[in-house]
Amino acid sequence: MIAHAPQVCSPTQPESNQSDSGQSLRAVVTPQCLLVLDFRGLGLERWLVLELAQQLASHTNSLPFEFRALEAILQHRVNALQSRLNEVHPVILDTLESLVDPKLLSADRTKLHILLQNSKSLSELETDIRVFKDSMLKILDEEEIMEELCLTKWTDPRVFEESSLGIDHAEEMELLLENYYMQAEELGNDTRELKGLIDDSESVIFINLDSHRNVMMRLNLQLTMGTFSLSLFGLMGVAFGMNLESSFEEDPRVFWLVTGFMFLGSGLIWRRLLSFLGRHLEPSFPPPIPPVWKRNLKTPDAKTGLR
Amino acid sequence: MIAHAPQVCSPTQPESNQSDSGQSLRAVVTPQCLLVLDFRGLGLERWLVLELAQQLASHTNSLPFEFRALEAILQHRVNALQSRLNEVHPVILDTLESLVDPKLLSADRTKLHILLQNSKSLSELETDIRVFKDSMLKILDEEEIMEELCLTKWTDPRVFEESSLGIDHAEEMELLLENYYMQAEELGNDTRELKGLIDDSESVIFINLDSHRNVMMRLNLQLTMGTFSLSLFGLMGVAFGMNLESSFEEDPRVFWLVTGFMFLGSGLIWRRLLSFLGRHLEPSFPPPIPPVWKRNLKTPDAKTGLR
Amino acid sequence: MIAHAPQVCSPTQPESNQSDSGQSLRAVVTPQCLLVLDFRGLGLERWLVLELAQQLASHTNSLPFEFRALEAILQHRVNALQSRLNEVHPVILDTLESLVDPKLLSADRTKLHILLQNSKSLSELETDIRVFKDSMLKILDEEEIMEELCLTKWTDPRVFEESSLGIDHAEEMELLLENYYMQAEELGNDTRELKGLIDDSESVIFINLDSHRNVMMRLNLQLTMGTFSLSLFGLMGVAFGMNLESSFEEDPRVFWLVTGFMFLGSGLIWRRLLSFLGRHLEPSFPPPIPPVWKRNLKTPDAKTGLR
Amino acid sequence: MIAHAPQVCSPTQPESNQSDSGQSLRAVVTPQCLLVLDFRGLGLERWLVLELAQQLASHTNSLPFEFRALEAILQHRVNALQSRLNEVHPVILDTLESLVDPKLLSADRTKLHILLQNSKSLSELETDIRVFKDSMLKILDEEEIMEELCLTKWTDPRVFEESSLGIDHAEEMELLLENYYMQAEELGNDTRELKGLIDDSESVIFINLDSHRNVMMRLNLQLTMGTFSLSLFGLMGVAFGMNLESSFEEDPRVFWLVTGFMFLGSGLIWRRLLSFLGRHLEPSFPPPIPPVWKRNLKTPDAKTGLR
Amino acid sequence: MIAHAPQVCSPTQPESNQSDSGQSLRAVVTPQCLLVLDFRGLGLERWLVLELAQQLASHTNSLPFEFRALEAILQHRVNALQSRLNEVHPVILDTLESLVDPKLLSADRTKLHILLQNSKSLSELETDIRVFKDSMLKILDEEEIMEELCLTKWTDPRVFEESSLGIDHAEEMELLLENYYMQAEELGNDTRELKGLIDDSESVIFINLDSHRNVMMRLNLQLTMGTFSLSLFGLMGVAFGMNLESSFEEDPRVFWLVTGFMFLGSGLIWRRLLSFLGRHLEPSFPPPIPPVWKRNLKTPDAKTGLR
Repeated sequence: MIAHAPQVCSPTQPESNQSDSGQSLRAVVTPQCLLVLDFRGLGLERWLVLELAQQLASHTNSLPFEFRALEAILQHRVNALQSRLNEVHPVILDTLESLVDPKLLSADRTKLHILLQNSKSLSELETDIRVFKDSMLKILDEEEIMEELCLTKWTDPRVFEESSLGIDHAEEMELLLENYYMQAEELGNDTRELKGLIDDSESVIFINLDSHRNVMMRLNLQLTMGTFSLSLFGLMGVAFGMNLESSFEEDPRVFWLVTGFMFLGSGLIWRRLLSFLGRHLEPSFPPPIPPVWKRNLKTPDAKTGLR
Repeated sequence: MIAHAPQVCSPTQPESNQSDSGQSLRAVVTPQCLLVLDFRGLGLERWLVLELAQQLASHTNSLPFEFRALEAILQHRVNALQSRLNEVHPVILDTLESLVDPKLLSADRTKLHILLQNSKSLSELETDIRVFKDSMLKILDEEEIMEELCLTKWTDPRVFEESSLGIDHAEEMELLLENYYMQAEELGNDTRELKGLIDDSESVIFINLDSHRNVMMRLNLQLTMGTFSLSLFGLMGVAFGMNLESSFEEDPRVFWLVTGFMFLGSGLIWRRLLSFLGRHLEPSFPPPIPPVWKRNLKTPDAKTGLR
Repeated sequence: MIAHAPQVCSPTQPESNQSDSGQSLRAVVTPQCLLVLDFRGLGLERWLVLELAQQLASHTNSLPFEFRALEAILQHRVNALQSRLNEVHPVILDTLESLVDPKLLSADRTKLHILLQNSKSLSELETDIRVFKDSMLKILDEEEIMEELCLTKWTDPRVFEESSLGIDHAEEMELLLENYYMQAEELGNDTRELKGLIDDSESVIFINLDSHRNVMMRLNLQLTMGTFSLSLFGLMGVAFGMNLESSFEEDPRVFWLVTGFMFLGSGLIWRRLLSFLGRHLEPSFPPPIPPVWKRNLKTPDAKTGLR
Repeated sequence: MIAHAPQVCSPTQPESNQSDSGQSLRAVVTPQCLLVLDFRGLGLERWLVLELAQQLASHTNSLPFEFRALEAILQHRVNALQSRLNEVHPVILDTLESLVDPKLLSADRTKLHILLQNSKSLSELETDIRVFKDSMLKILDEEEIMEELCLTKWTDPRVFEESSLGIDHAEEMELLLENYYMQAEELGNDTRELKGLIDDSESVIFINLDSHRNVMMRLNLQLTMGTFSLSLFGLMGVAFGMNLESSFEEDPRVFWLVTGFMFLGSGLIWRRLLSFLGRHLEPSFPPPIPPVWKRNLKTPDAKTGLR
Repeated sequence: MIAHAPQVCSPTQPESNQSDSGQSLRAVVTPQCLLVLDFRGLGLERWLVLELAQQLASHTNSLPFEFRALEAILQHRVNALQSRLNEVHPVILDTLESLVDPKLLSADRTKLHILLQNSKSLSELETDIRVFKDSMLKILDEEEIMEELCLTKWTDPRVFEESSLGIDHAEEMELLLENYYMQAEELGNDTRELKGLIDDSESVIFINLDSHRNVMMRLNLQLTMGTFSLSLFGLMGVAFGMNLESSFEEDPRVFWLVTGFMFLGSGLIWRRLLSFLGRHLEPSFPPPIPPVWKRNLKTPDAKTGLR
């Protein structure tokens, strides 16, 4: 029975075989030992040598060996995913926070590059989490694979005795796998929320940039109005500057009259234009819609009680 | 039988164990008491001490104890989700309403920050609601878990008597869970609608900002046209202002001629440019498409009747 | 048997219990009468009093009473959804049509507000349709609920006689429900198409506004070029206008020379700048890609025939 | 047996009953004839009269009559969908190609209108294809409906003889329906790709318009810089043009000095501003990120082999 | 038994029959030979002649013939998809990298065209991968088709002997198909990530273009402010340039006074305007929100352990 364990273990390979950004592990679990057939990835090697051996040797946990081996591998897998998320999460939050900052007129391009790279890592992480979840789900959905994963079931009476809690080994295995499935699910939720946050922030960045532009454009327009009025009345000065006879040359009051008219006139025209701009941009009639919008939330009280 | 109730209760943990923005509860329900194993979160503590005890002590409801305990926990859970939605909903509506306001030239950045934070809370809430719904659905899908949740079924004849309405306890439990599932479903619908409203409003904000910009740009362009015509005819004045001999110096009518030409000319050129702009922006041919668009809605009358 | 009908009817409540923008109905159907337990909503009241009674009283339809009652309720429900869509649909089409109009330089903000409100109503309607469809689907998926809905099956021999078409009552009920399910499905399709149309139109509005802005910007740039050339050559006139001795003062030809040079020069420079702009914006090399794109549609002829 | 065929055929109605942009067909198939109960749509009428009769009369195909009738109807349905796609596809490709053209400064609004209309048709087509696929799938999923569709199975020994290929009639029917299901699937794929292409093109159009705007804005900024420097040094000329005594009036070299200073000064300042702009827009430090990005694709060789 | 193999093989056709950008293959597999019925596509022809024959002739692999034939076809299919992805992937990465480059003021339009074409190829590839996966999944889901695919099961005792590993042929076939399904799944994941990367990059390109525009607009605004102040004080010079008597003509200090006032005044006004702009764009109050945002990631430690 023990001899044919390696074949039985083939279903365990899918879940420890995903390419986790270059990492992969292919192992055979027997009731006595864990044969690592093939692995790739630097972090994985160190983990195998330094941590896994100790973890499997310690008998603090009274579960059968294959449970502990599987748990160690799954735990390492989830931890790897979690640590990748932990790496990416604060960087993205920091970058978004500095990009969303309303004081900035233009987005910092190096920050944008960092954001782009991290959202690339994030979508790779999302794919890996989904692949992990799918392979877990596939095992959870087929009862027989679950049965086959419990190798020590019949052979070791000591184990059966310990399981006198009322749960047999297939259920124990299901709870073990479900536990890691739910951890992966939670990681997936965090990833999705982070993606949503990036999208929302990008909208806010766009609105910020557009708002800045509108504000600058209004200032620009106001100055263009000023320049226009100065040009208009400056034309009068230019006219009097021509070497042509206007018959006013000798009257000293005309100088002050024309000069005053030029400055006052351009000032008045400017003011006129500014107030026109103000009226143009703000339609006077109030939008009659807001009261309709604020529909109150349905109160939850009306629905409680067991029918 | 009562002794092994704690094991039976393990399936109830998933639904009271979600991390609800820091809150979590792990409890064991027996037919006689509710053992709270572990909990986290401030609001939860106050609720456990102040409200849950009273609610469970009052015997207004004739259902078995574990029903009432489960109902109290689920009710508290749904209420917590609902109150988080109630908190976020009016803030988002207010913020959107002030951002969408067509009178504003630029979006208020503090409002944007508030919106961003609240849409972050909203997506966290959405995740929690989905997790809650998923764990409810998982229990609802497996008949046997439902059976196990009804602890008092066989032990208490008084209970059986009360259930003479024709519904056995598993169905009663199903209705109880379904009730809360549907409340969560409704919360999820409200959340999704709110998200959709945020998206739609952002499009409207963008169109508003773009419209404002176009209006300002047209004004700017019109003034630039004016400045251009003034510069063009001002050049004439500058020419006559040169200290060069033009042979017109002595004729007093030339001054008025040239001055009038300058002002009239720039006015005419400006008007020309403005009408050119008007024609340029508004293509004269009418778009021949509208009539096709207004296809009437199919009338529902033709489809009624039970064949 | 008739006595326990009220319990049997509890499964019918889900589908008549949805909050339809404030409307809700909770009723019990027996083979002889329809007990309205609870309802909310103004339109609903009028419908109950004025139409439902007459509809149920008329015996034109030979089906059992509970069929007719259920059909009347479902029909009213679908009609309500349809009439809400009919209300929203033409408004949205009109608003979009006037917003998409390429002649407009800026989007009308009141139209935007109307659009925003209506797309809010539309997504509420979408939610209600989905809820209706889900509850119908739930009943359709469970054979036993369908069985229980047919109350008169065994009791009334007259009814059995009429059903001699070869379809028993459960199938009749299934066809009835499926009919309304498909009507709701069609409403859902219309709603989704309308949402897609709003999205597409918003893209077109953005492209329109951007196009207008580009056109205005080019005009602005062309005028700025003109103003620049006038300033450049006007500087020459200003130079000769200085009260400094240029030794050309006495030569009458110099006036015309310099004036002509000023006007001609600025004209030439402007033309030069305009043609530079033209070349700058339109890259001369033709994009060599189009021929690849126009891959012909696969002809359907090659695939027909029953193998 | 033949007498009750019409009832049996009711399941065939769903698939020939969809409103195909106004077309609908309701028919009853018996082993001997095809009764068209109701139809709507112009193209449908011509098809029924001219083509369907001939197609059914010709006995080239040795399959039972109801197979040929069903095949003719489904074939016509798929052809109608395909021809609608064929109509919309080249128009959309042409319109997109002319809109995406990088030489254009602004999007042609009539093209936009055409695009909007066609993408509306496209989403209607998508809905119709999905409805067709759903109804096919519904029949394919239920074995018994499939059985009932084969009317001649037991009655006609000649038919049974022909089916000696090893496939019974239910399988034959399944292959027939699956064939059309897969054709509809392919149409659906084409439609989705076309929608994706529209979305991608819209992004490219936006980037194009934005790029054009940036280029124009840089030109505008460069000219504004020129105008600014001319104004700055023109002020000097204006100062010397004042009728005030500057004590330089008599020196003929001052004229050339000041004039040269004005032109050279504005030229130098302009050059300075332009190089400032160049440095401002192009940050000197190279982005250190690209090498990380170009991660090679995983080579497929390492994964082949049947383990 | 062998005689009826051709019929049995019909289920293998769906997976080798997809139109792979013009390629299609229709073949019948018997235990002794592979009959290629029909094929299309240039690359396919060369592969059939040059590689497939050799691959099938070599007996390195001890599996039955139909396994090797199926594996060769599937392998070629997956390789074709992979090579299409390998072709498109680096081009898209290169194009995106050069488009995302923050130094560029405007997007290179030829790059945009290349990107558009490649994303079109990418979505076609995505469709083909999905179709391949669907047809694999369809076979994997139906046990009986799998059984029928194993032709040599009963006939050849030599084969049965070799399969003494404990896996029967249906399982072997399942592993074979699953292997290729998972390879296609991975291709699909890569495709989706690439699509996501294109979307993210487009957002970054838009933000980049917008940022550039804002920076240029601020520069433009600053220069417009300068031009405005020069015009304002130039008006004074123009006033003194008029041929009117101002009674200051004889005082030599007035020239320097007015000239100095003009230059200093415009400088001061400009500085004033610039500082106003600075204050206008940067609201002084610090946004009080950031600390709330940086919620720490939940630590994974608290959740480990087998309950």
